[in-house]
Amino acid sequence: MVAAALAPGRPLADARPLGARLFETRRLSLEIAAPLSAEDMTVQAMDDASPTKWHLAHTSWFFETFILAAHDPRYTPFDEAFAYCFNSYYERLGARQPRPKRGLLTWPPLDRVLAYRDHVDRALDKLLAEQDPTPWRRLIEVGINHEQQHQELMLTDILALFAANPLRPAYREAPPRARREAREPMRWIDFPGGVFPVGHAGDGFAFDNEGPRHDALIHPFRLADRLVTNGEWLAFMADGGYETPTLWLSDGWTTVERENWRAPLYWERRDGAWLQMSLHGLQPLDDDAPVAHVSYYEADAFARWAGKRLPTEFEWEVAAATAPQEGNSLATGALRPLPAGPSNGAPRQMFGDVWEWTQSAYLPYPGYRPPKGALGEYNGKFMVSQHVLRGGSCATPRGHARATYRNFFYPHQRWQFLGLRLASEAA
Amino acid sequence: MVAAALAPGRPLADARPLGARLFETRRLSLEIAAPLSAEDMTVQAMDDASPTKWHLAHTSWFFETFILAAHDPRYTPFDEAFAYCFNSYYERLGARQPRPKRGLLTWPPLDRVLAYRDHVDRALDKLLAEQDPTPWRRLIEVGINHEQQHQELMLTDILALFAANPLRPAYREAPPRARREAREPMRWIDFPGGVFPVGHAGDGFAFDNEGPRHDALIHPFRLADRLVTNGEWLAFMADGGYETPTLWLSDGWTTVERENWRAPLYWERRDGAWLQMSLHGLQPLDDDAPVAHVSYYEADAFARWAGKRLPTEFEWEVAAATAPQEGNSLATGALRPLPAGPSNGAPRQMFGDVWEWTQSAYLPYPGYRPPKGALGEYNGKFMVSQHVLRGGSCATPRGHARATYRNFFYPHQRWQFLGLRLASEAA
Amino acid sequence: MVAAALAPGRPLADARPLGARLFETRRLSLEIAAPLSAEDMTVQAMDDASPTKWHLAHTSWFFETFILAAHDPRYTPFDEAFAYCFNSYYERLGARQPRPKRGLLTWPPLDRVLAYRDHVDRALDKLLAEQDPTPWRRLIEVGINHEQQHQELMLTDILALFAANPLRPAYREAPPRARREAREPMRWIDFPGGVFPVGHAGDGFAFDNEGPRHDALIHPFRLADRLVTNGEWLAFMADGGYETPTLWLSDGWTTVERENWRAPLYWERRDGAWLQMSLHGLQPLDDDAPVAHVSYYEADAFARWAGKRLPTEFEWEVAAATAPQEGNSLATGALRPLPAGPSNGAPRQMFGDVWEWTQSAYLPYPGYRPPKGALGEYNGKFMVSQHVLRGGSCATPRGHARATYRNFFYPHQRWQFLGLRLASEAA
Amino acid sequence: MVAAALAPGRPLADARPLGARLFETRRLSLEIAAPLSAEDMTVQAMDDASPTKWHLAHTSWFFETFILAAHDPRYTPFDEAFAYCFNSYYERLGARQPRPKRGLLTWPPLDRVLAYRDHVDRALDKLLAEQDPTPWRRLIEVGINHEQQHQELMLTDILALFAANPLRPAYREAPPRARREAREPMRWIDFPGGVFPVGHAGDGFAFDNEGPRHDALIHPFRLADRLVTNGEWLAFMADGGYETPTLWLSDGWTTVERENWRAPLYWERRDGAWLQMSLHGLQPLDDDAPVAHVSYYEADAFARWAGKRLPTEFEWEVAAATAPQEGNSLATGALRPLPAGPSNGAPRQMFGDVWEWTQSAYLPYPGYRPPKGALGEYNGKFMVSQHVLRGGSCATPRGHARATYRNFFYPHQRWQFLGLRLASEAA
Repeated sequence: MVAAALAPGRPLADARPLGARLFETRRLSLEIAAPLSAEDMTVQAMDDASPTKWHLAHTSWFFETFILAAHDPRYTPFDEAFAYCFNSYYERLGARQPRPKRGLLTWPPLDRVLAYRDHVDRALDKLLAEQDPTPWRRLIEVGINHEQQHQELMLTDILALFAANPLRPAYREAPPRARREAREPMRWIDFPGGVFPVGHAGDGFAFDNEGPRHDALIHPFRLADRLVTNGEWLAFMADGGYETPTLWLSDGWTTVERENWRAPLYWERRDGAWLQMSLHGLQPLDDDAPVAHVSYYEADAFARWAGKRLPTEFEWEVAAATAPQEGNSLATGALRPLPAGPSNGAPRQMFGDVWEWTQSAYLPYPGYRPPKGALGEYNGKFMVSQHVLRGGSCATPRGHARATYRNFFYPHQRWQFLGLRLASEAA
Repeated sequence: MVAAALAPGRPLADARPLGARLFETRRLSLEIAAPLSAEDMTVQAMDDASPTKWHLAHTSWFFETFILAAHDPRYTPFDEAFAYCFNSYYERLGARQPRPKRGLLTWPPLDRVLAYRDHVDRALDKLLAEQDPTPWRRLIEVGINHEQQHQELMLTDILALFAANPLRPAYREAPPRARREAREPMRWIDFPGGVFPVGHAGDGFAFDNEGPRHDALIHPFRLADRLVTNGEWLAFMADGGYETPTLWLSDGWTTVERENWRAPLYWERRDGAWLQMSLHGLQPLDDDAPVAHVSYYEADAFARWAGKRLPTEFEWEVAAATAPQEGNSLATGALRPLPAGPSNGAPRQMFGDVWEWTQSAYLPYPGYRPPKGALGEYNGKFMVSQHVLRGGSCATPRGHARATYRNFFYPHQRWQFLGLRLASEAA
Repeated sequence: MVAAALAPGRPLADARPLGARLFETRRLSLEIAAPLSAEDMTVQAMDDASPTKWHLAHTSWFFETFILAAHDPRYTPFDEAFAYCFNSYYERLGARQPRPKRGLLTWPPLDRVLAYRDHVDRALDKLLAEQDPTPWRRLIEVGINHEQQHQELMLTDILALFAANPLRPAYREAPPRARREAREPMRWIDFPGGVFPVGHAGDGFAFDNEGPRHDALIHPFRLADRLVTNGEWLAFMADGGYETPTLWLSDGWTTVERENWRAPLYWERRDGAWLQMSLHGLQPLDDDAPVAHVSYYEADAFARWAGKRLPTEFEWEVAAATAPQEGNSLATGALRPLPAGPSNGAPRQMFGDVWEWTQSAYLPYPGYRPPKGALGEYNGKFMVSQHVLRGGSCATPRGHARATYRNFFYPHQRWQFLGLRLASEAA
Repeated sequence: MVAAALAPGRPLADARPLGARLFETRRLSLEIAAPLSAEDMTVQAMDDASPTKWHLAHTSWFFETFILAAHDPRYTPFDEAFAYCFNSYYERLGARQPRPKRGLLTWPPLDRVLAYRDHVDRALDKLLAEQDPTPWRRLIEVGINHEQQHQELMLTDILALFAANPLRPAYREAPPRARREAREPMRWIDFPGGVFPVGHAGDGFAFDNEGPRHDALIHPFRLADRLVTNGEWLAFMADGGYETPTLWLSDGWTTVERENWRAPLYWERRDGAWLQMSLHGLQPLDDDAPVAHVSYYEADAFARWAGKRLPTEFEWEVAAATAPQEGNSLATGALRPLPAGPSNGAPRQMFGDVWEWTQSAYLPYPGYRPPKGALGEYNGKFMVSQHVLRGGSCATPRGHARATYRNFFYPHQRWQFLGLRLASEAA
């Protein structure tokens, strides 16, 4: 079980030795897959999503390719054909299974993918035990973080699959309904302007796109102390949010009309009540929980309707420095966004629950250069037409998020745990 | 094993009692599925194809809906939700899973589909044992023949799936290469003109679209005594067949250019040799075997290149009366088209190997009326824009084909075992 | 004016000398274009339609290519670049402007296209005056008939263009509303079965696809003595015709849903009344006039709703032999389908008003061979996936239609003057 | 003629009285249209482009709607139906002709559109003469600048139309080939970092998206002193630029493959030489002229290949303050990008020739709020997924460009005069 393996209270991941973290991460992938049948793991819900089996194999291919094949002269690849099957998008590494056809890979079967994982794990274990880590220590960290990203995708992609199934199956049994919190209005926190350093610094792991650390000029702003809730989203809908073109970006309105959007993804109206498809199956909508599965277009329209705006990524980052780096991540086992706890004067829900859309386009930081080699394709080549999201979600593995983390999606995408927090100019 | 279960030499299916034939047919579906994993059975290769699991469930739904629910008042449906999941195209029976999304049905899992089959089989067994068969005897025959159609589809759809897999897996191990036959030229058989009765008559089973039996005027014609071979197709290709627009129907040429067709479906050129993806995996092309997986457009272009034409469906039917109703069907276990045996003055390969494109559009016979009720949608509503194919293929279950049988596909479709036989005007 | 040039009462076209008919046809094209601006003549309403200017040029290119360039050694082409611009679909004659981009040809300007027509006409005049007609007499007939086909297209394509214009302009001023005929029920005429010769015979012009003349076996049938009217179509609509999937062919229903068809093309509901866009602009729907602009799918669904069927092309042809070869063609100047006159025991409206869908697929007649050379592409390469229409329409030039004429369109097409007449089995 | 009307040497536009500038702008639109036939003016080259006639009408509708109808109680609209025809994208102003169907508007005819312009001009003239300008003075400025934007579009849209024509017509006769400049290498100019005010300030006209003026932090950078040339682009191509996926953003490479891009838009290879379609027709490529008609994807790939990057919009704006606000705009009459003059230590070609892609996404400035009412849709609703371009082009009317101007296009678009200038981090 996910929750059992990563119960709250455990020490922070990064303090532990590299090998322990590596194999704990590898195990977590299998734990996430455990409730699923081979059938569930093979099918691709849509072009944007990937099958669980593919995630399990691809993350192994990643270690095999970038570490074992590159740095262990004794390593024998498990199967030469897997490079074609499980390369995601690395042009430097040759041809690959087209992304929308990952779900056709009934071969190799699951057992063989599990054997592949085992083969790679054993080789990694041997490498760690026997060799000088200098050339590949950083790469192991990349591999761990890469697999953590895919752990989140495994969950969101399974949700996409189950939401497309007329039986609306549950990934996990529904927990008892969350105790109703006393509802609190959104509160506003003021932040001063100034020149602030942003981007990653220090010893810990970060992706290349989080740097170089550099100064950014920030204008005074206000930030909501919690996420926008489902109840607030219902008010937007009741006020004609999805029928009022002037609330929307032009591309957003085109999308609303083409896709016939009338509510966030996974919301369904049955017998006059709103339900939400979730990893616990189809559940009553929780008014107090953060809204999730909204696109940038929707988040932007909501903010306009509310007379506010989305924060920039640097506003968010500066504010995050004042908040505890904890929240409702995968480690809580909730597997869904939860209502905010009582207000405390600091920004709440900054980490966990849902990734937060920012108004910042995903672009390189000043002086950014992608790493040499195929890993240079990891982040840099996606720096156009997407928006940055910050924070983390209820599907983000423990220890994976941080204040400088830059997640990114296209403005129309909704299948991740994506939500929003309002901002505005200083009063 | 398919071959074991249906070895040649067994008596013709229809002579045996209804129940025996019914349950043999039900078993054969499972035998066909036996070599496949749950993963293989769940995925949909393309919009035109369906997953094996869906075929297994849909054929059971067919018996449940048209016989058990309709004629057995004691019958309890296995799962009310299955009507949505496994209705194929019956508008009278309500909403259904969209055809291109059948592959998303990881739920219900295979075990539950197998339990569904078992539930239906037990109920059918009880029905047959205890009730007056008058109201549903014909429906059982329809159900048997319906399931037989899906047995052929299970094999062609699996081939489509495995052909899309970069590992090119084999459904079954490759047999030793067929002994090379002495090649014989195509011979021509003359048939006189006249008014002939066509369409089904008599006691045996036939689909509604094979009647009413009626007179047809046939002009004197000649028919090739065997199917067109891969070797002959190679000559067409070598002569620029796929590069010469004037050989093609206009829609055909548009398709050639849009789809970049350069050979039949499933042909691959590697290291200067032509291979063919098959149920035995990727195999060397057999020059003497009948060409398969060609569209109507291609069959028509080949005939034009050869200075001949395709037969009409009635020419074929009249000629078939002179040929033995046997051939390389599913029962031979070959699972691939085989070279014709020695010529014998009669048309060879009329049944089995590949379905034969005719130049006849799939249209209603004079006086045709579809049956009342939902079964009226079985055949009648597809009578536009398709062409009739006659004969049967190496994936057609024993006893399923007959001289009056009308198969039909769109002119661009290729994933079935589709080939051709040449015809011409009388000399 | 169209009507003035081709007033009723004139002798039948074909009795007059070739040259007179040729230049009358050439003039008629200009008369049809006369009410249009250069702007109207340049724009392409949709992929299926062509600009008037293109029609004017293409018909000239046809004479230039197949007659002047081929048979007059002294002929100098007007402009070498026009072959690319104005070849329609002749693969043997090289590359050409893609069909959906004919509307981009603002160059050559209209004046130059008119000069092109003039250049070709002068050369044809000289050819006719000075040379032995044996080699090209038949080609001149083909050219005349080809241009007549384009005259009908000019009108239907202009209607498509004006119907897409929010101002709903009229091609010609509306005539006073037709006097209301006393409504008569549809009557049925019985025809015996038998073997009948069908297809063209004799001296007059016919297209290659009308032959060879051959025997066809016809079963006894009944045919309505007039076309289906708008009023009858309203009854179909009122009875849920467009909302009842079981009335439709499967492809038809898919089209209804995808295109959101709720009425024939060009019908518009305004303030509770049905209007119809026409060459006279937006006009009140005439209940007694034949329904027009319906697809094969709609015609077939209507017939099923009415408990009847569409005739086969040979039933129609046999019946047409009993009817006068006259009707509401382009020559009447009405430019719209008109109510049937009083019943007279014979089939009415067999020629003119609207082309009549038949249930016959457009396929080659027994022994059909396309002509040698590029003209072989005229009709033969379209013999798949289309249905035959018979009769002629209110936009068909006088003398162009005949009992053996085979028009053909795809089952989804509606922009021509397409309607239907019911048939059924003999009582 | 364009050049005659706006010859260099005239005083800057904004110094002259409002009415004079207004009517000069209105006249210039007609001058731009003058070389075109009604046919040329009616057709739409592609979805992104609009017909000249539509531009002429839409710019008049703009004045009519936002000024005359709103502020002149005596004004009578020319034709109520024109609001539907000529509203571009203002949701607050109701339904409108779909953008991809603007080319179907053969009605209203050109004469009527010209009469519409005249009607609007007379009413504006009267308004200016007789009424207090306070309420609409700013709106007149908006209308002038709006029409200037459409003047540039008229030229780029005509180029798109003529480039799609197989005759490759010229909008204007080709001038004698530009004298060959001595080629100079690109030189680099260093700019210090710091906090700089950016955005529009002061009395002159600016669009709402150029403000609010605010401080921006800029890091030290270097900027090329001229635009990238065709010759340099040829070197990129010769080095496999269009065949090397690792040079491209992921979306860019997908586009290269899907669209089969192998050179900038409008480049054609004939007989071994590169030609370029231009407003002067098909011309030999000028190696020394700035490259034009490249997408953001291409500009970005070129910069990566060159080991540089694109500037940010604020880097560009700061640098532009050091450059003369003059260049090869529409007023020079060249109608094509010209080689840079001799280097002079300052950035050359900052205004005119081609718009310069920046790496900045088109997003709102801090504190930006769109204007109230329908004009709020002018710029704000497009602030997603586009990139900012700076500078101006050879089709930009004199006086329209300025250092704070923000043009914006999608990263795949190429039909405008779009080019690039390289930047890099400070040494």
